[in-house]
Amino acid sequence: MASSSSSDSTAPQTPQLRKDSVTNRWVIFSPARAKRPSDFKSKSPINPNQQHQQQCPFCIGHEHECAPEIFRVPPDNPDWKLRVIQNLYPALSRDIPAAEEGNHSDSGRVVVNGFGFHDVVIETPVHSVQLSDLSPREIGEVLVAHTRRIKQLMSYDSIKYVQVFKNHGASAGASMSHSHSQIMALPVVPPAVATRLGSMKEYFEQTGKCSVCESNSKDLLIDVSAHFISIVPFAATFPFEMWIIPLDHSSHFHELDSEKAVELGGLLKLVLRKMSLQLNNPPFNFMVQTSPLGDNASQLPYSHWFMQIVPQLSVVAGFEMGTGCYINPVFPEDAAKVLREVKVS
Amino acid sequence: MASSSSSDSTAPQTPQLRKDSVTNRWVIFSPARAKRPSDFKSKSPINPNQQHQQQCPFCIGHEHECAPEIFRVPPDNPDWKLRVIQNLYPALSRDIPAAEEGNHSDSGRVVVNGFGFHDVVIETPVHSVQLSDLSPREIGEVLVAHTRRIKQLMSYDSIKYVQVFKNHGASAGASMSHSHSQIMALPVVPPAVATRLGSMKEYFEQTGKCSVCESNSKDLLIDVSAHFISIVPFAATFPFEMWIIPLDHSSHFHELDSEKAVELGGLLKLVLRKMSLQLNNPPFNFMVQTSPLGDNASQLPYSHWFMQIVPQLSVVAGFEMGTGCYINPVFPEDAAKVLREVKVS
Ligand SMILES: Nc1ncnc2c1ncn2[C@@H]1O[C@H](COP(=O)(O)OP(=O)(O)O[C@H]2O[C@H](CO)[C@@H](O)[C@H](O)[C@H]2O)[C@@H](O)[C@H]1O
Ligand SMILES: Nc1ncnc2c1ncn2[C@@H]1O[C@H](COP(=O)(O)OP(=O)(O)O[C@H]2O[C@H](CO)[C@@H](O)[C@H](O)[C@H]2O)[C@@H](O)[C@H]1O
Repeated sequence: MASSSSSDSTAPQTPQLRKDSVTNRWVIFSPARAKRPSDFKSKSPINPNQQHQQQCPFCIGHEHECAPEIFRVPPDNPDWKLRVIQNLYPALSRDIPAAEEGNHSDSGRVVVNGFGFHDVVIETPVHSVQLSDLSPREIGEVLVAHTRRIKQLMSYDSIKYVQVFKNHGASAGASMSHSHSQIMALPVVPPAVATRLGSMKEYFEQTGKCSVCESNSKDLLIDVSAHFISIVPFAATFPFEMWIIPLDHSSHFHELDSEKAVELGGLLKLVLRKMSLQLNNPPFNFMVQTSPLGDNASQLPYSHWFMQIVPQLSVVAGFEMGTGCYINPVFPEDAAKVLREVKVS
Repeated sequence: MASSSSSDSTAPQTPQLRKDSVTNRWVIFSPARAKRPSDFKSKSPINPNQQHQQQCPFCIGHEHECAPEIFRVPPDNPDWKLRVIQNLYPALSRDIPAAEEGNHSDSGRVVVNGFGFHDVVIETPVHSVQLSDLSPREIGEVLVAHTRRIKQLMSYDSIKYVQVFKNHGASAGASMSHSHSQIMALPVVPPAVATRLGSMKEYFEQTGKCSVCESNSKDLLIDVSAHFISIVPFAATFPFEMWIIPLDHSSHFHELDSEKAVELGGLLKLVLRKMSLQLNNPPFNFMVQTSPLGDNASQLPYSHWFMQIVPQLSVVAGFEMGTGCYINPVFPEDAAKVLREVKVS
């Protein structure tokens, strides 16, 4: 309504609440928050590669220090490019029985055996190489390793959902600095996934459209390739959060073929480099947001997988923990404009 | 079933998933995770009071550097004990119109004006004093300030929920080191609150009982006073998470009277001191979990307020962001035993 006094931003300058039609989450956009002072010393930027190759179990030549290997690329080659291994400290165990039909509850308490799989993908043999240093083809190979492992895990009926994610940098939760991602196979459909599917379904029933297909809009666009777009979502939970979305409506990440994986690798590399240049190499997480394994694509006309990339710029604190509602000081239109304009050489 | 080989822990040593009947959240309990190494340098413990009193706007004598005061205790006294003030960088604005009936949505996007209130409670005039340094009576006065402010905010029909929370220490999100808490009044019932109420309602309908009343059990108990108990919840989202629960079934925090506030202050002081002694003075958050304002107590036989206290020991990373499911390396029975046994002099 009232035109903003400064800047060419299209975003309003008063706070606004937005509800994401995919995640079903309320987010408070509040530019004034960005200006608040802090009397704590600022967090140090991330220090990758704090460990010498000699001490890192993920480095080439240290395979014996790792939990068992699941597969490597290329196969049977001591000069591997990537390895998928078991996590030595798994959150879930592949060695206990899966829960029987229904949850055994004792005095009204709901408990399920912690059956599941927890794997690590070592994305490069070299300690000093980061994911965004790899070529689009090599990043594509990492993504194909994820899909290949998901397809193996699908053979277990009791596995309901597989979460692929990456932690980069200590304040994004990483405990290991060697470039890696993780794959967790769960015996339940986790709450955020159930909520997301419910929200997408509701949107589909109300509009006849897919909420992810609809999230593409000019003011939120970062970049495009032949089969993918990268955007800042309309109700981004976190400042400079980015999504990469396949343009073809597709419910499951693991259906990605190797050619498109290379293209996706190229777009992922681009947005990671834009983010690093603009935000001074921040710690970040990425998460693949896909559909539960039991459901096949034709049952899910409303579901569309995407990749979520979140730079770690702010701390989740009491308000967010209490309410599940997030405060984002950067309007998505502004973040998208900034990221669109970052020049990557 | 199989007896555990070491320790006198009553908790199982294989991973387990538990669903909290209050928050409706799945949590993975995984003791093996606690042992994983990290090659990042460990986070430094919190440094309170990094700023001199001369530069802190929350210190006594610096009232003119703050946003306007709402009230102080004692009233009209330059020698105040606590002040409730407006947040100078509010996430929501009290100066814009509240949303009209229904959300105005443009091209299927749900947007609400960011109307609301965001206040700060300065808990002590002295920079070096922490909440747990105050006497039970003084902590009670802080809690009464919270309830008094909520009662003022209830007069706005468009305010649906009030979140009281505290951030202590930089890695728990605090930007100011002077002891304070915050009060945010929201024009929507936030998602975690809606989920919690739905879960409590379902439990009540299935069992005829209140899920919070039922969360009291001997193996999870930390301490008791005449009208309150402190426990580790059965499916604690975070390691060493603690809840303080009023023994009388009561839906709204703001109905706390000043006598019980002093008793609650004493129990809060005790558990904060136990936590600090056991966990080396960690950063922490506390959140009051109450009911929406419109609903009166008789409409909410299933709802019961409590206070949640979370030491900041681990980082929420890709898995948690993707799934909404948490990994907790400490079984609640073990955390409760440890906290029960910490001697506070
Ligand atoms: N020799 C070896 N062989 C095989 N595996 C090895 C190994 N040495 C270490 N590992 C495993 O390698 C993984 C490295 O993972 P990350 O650095 O991404 O974070 P981590 O899982 O520790 O925790 C982060 O991510 C999780 C999930 O989001 C959060 O719960 C947590 O708080 C956050 O710190 C660890 O899971 C570890 O168990
Ligand atoms: N002179 C002055 N007068 C009045 N108020 C003043 C002031 N100077 C500063 N303030 C306000 O005082 C508050 C201090 O709050 P905290 O230290 O608890 O964390 P903050 O709200 O900054 O962010 C943390 O909590 C929020 C909510 O959980 C998270 O979104 C965020 O990421 C996390 O860092 C700030 O909100 C600030 O705006």
